[in-house]
Amino acid sequence: MIFFSKKMKIVLLGTGNVAHHLAHRFQAVGLSLAQLYGRNLEKLTFLANALQCPFTNNPQALQLDADLYILAVSDGAIEILLQEIEINAKGAFHKALFVHTSGTIPSTVFAPFAKHYGVFYPLQTFSIGKQPDWSNLPMCVDANTDQQLIVLEYLARQLSPNVHRITDAQRATLHVAAVFVNNFTNHLFHIGQTIVENEGISFDLLKPLIQETAAKIQHNSPQTMQTGPAKRGDTVTIEKHKTFLKKYPFYNKLYDLMTKNINDKKNHLFALKK
Amino acid sequence: MIFFSKKMKIVLLGTGNVAHHLAHRFQAVGLSLAQLYGRNLEKLTFLANALQCPFTNNPQALQLDADLYILAVSDGAIEILLQEIEINAKGAFHKALFVHTSGTIPSTVFAPFAKHYGVFYPLQTFSIGKQPDWSNLPMCVDANTDQQLIVLEYLARQLSPNVHRITDAQRATLHVAAVFVNNFTNHLFHIGQTIVENEGISFDLLKPLIQETAAKIQHNSPQTMQTGPAKRGDTVTIEKHKTFLKKYPFYNKLYDLMTKNINDKKNHLFALKK
Repeated sequence: MIFFSKKMKIVLLGTGNVAHHLAHRFQAVGLSLAQLYGRNLEKLTFLANALQCPFTNNPQALQLDADLYILAVSDGAIEILLQEIEINAKGAFHKALFVHTSGTIPSTVFAPFAKHYGVFYPLQTFSIGKQPDWSNLPMCVDANTDQQLIVLEYLARQLSPNVHRITDAQRATLHVAAVFVNNFTNHLFHIGQTIVENEGISFDLLKPLIQETAAKIQHNSPQTMQTGPAKRGDTVTIEKHKTFLKKYPFYNKLYDLMTKNINDKKNHLFALKK
Repeated sequence: MIFFSKKMKIVLLGTGNVAHHLAHRFQAVGLSLAQLYGRNLEKLTFLANALQCPFTNNPQALQLDADLYILAVSDGAIEILLQEIEINAKGAFHKALFVHTSGTIPSTVFAPFAKHYGVFYPLQTFSIGKQPDWSNLPMCVDANTDQQLIVLEYLARQLSPNVHRITDAQRATLHVAAVFVNNFTNHLFHIGQTIVENEGISFDLLKPLIQETAAKIQHNSPQTMQTGPAKRGDTVTIEKHKTFLKKYPFYNKLYDLMTKNINDKKNHLFALKK
């Protein structure tokens, strides 16, 4: 069992977007990494050099005496990496806390390997070259014991004031919703871009609208913010749009589906009742 | 024919969200309204009092000697209002410039009524109680003569530095795209909210992600910013999500359609080729 301290030994596994931003945030708040692990040697040396921390690309060469091992790797790599580390063969690991940063993988993936485990999930989209806003970044934590959950809460609060206890089931729900509001929303932006650029119009004209659409729901319910021809039942405009969209079969289909649903009270009530 | 001056006489018709924010912006940049017209007497007196400007709810009582008449009313009301004003019966109107603020109605709606006409379309979503960011708000202008177009450009530049000449056809395209990136995006936010709140989770947890999704495409192409299980072809996660979504038939259908399209190169190429 471990306790939170500013001097706790943390090993970070991963060199992707999440690992990159977590590592830099740890350093920014005065928590240094004891070791960085990565499979991709180029990314690994680049990040380790930036952080000035020890590193390895050999899962067998991990430091054995760290307090916390954070697996910030892709979903599919978590279990494989746990097997490679050969935790069970090394008793030294048994007091350590193991966590991953995934939105979808249950915390119980650790059960066959570790005694203390949990989740350390930053609910945000990260890209290299764009600083996330840590002042409000939701950190979702979970652990298999209350004591270790408290440790993770303390640690998460070093990174962001916005910390939540989220169970595996809740995290799975959040992840589905995140696909709608992040991945699918971004695809709508792509569609908007395609439509205007095909007619020689710059996508830049739509960017302030996109920013305002996201800004509006920060303090208002999306339901009350809904506008547009579908909401108004403006069939004249809807027909104009559908004529325009004839050359885009998929966009046309999506337009129908959205338009049908936006004002479908029954569907909405159904959704709310489950 | 009219010319731009800071003292030009402007009559604004409408008391909805667009009229409200346009009126306040005119006042803020030192352009006072000669008269405000509205059908809804309560909204009309409220806005006219805030602006301290003359007002009427009688379309026959409009000032006849204004330079510019801006119809900031709903799409369906534009033509009706033009008939009510009885422009043709009043020769005085013939030197004035008539514009509307609609994203969908062709400028030629004015042709039977006015000699000089155009469009003054702010490409943004407005709500009462939320200040729009005028420092970057795209103002789309058009007119039936080059001379009057220049007047509208000058006027628009008083409100925002982001002014564009946009034809009727281009505006129709922008409006379709705006439905995707604004109305449909907002509906995705509503779906995200429904999904999490039905499981007792606060929608607040998704808000930073929503803000970042919009922020990312301000300086990057949506195509390069696309992430998620559909983009990765992560069928394990997609199957988990579809199991979860069984209780939401519409969301499930939408999930399928989006997932199928996000990585469908053929569909994308088709869209780009038209």
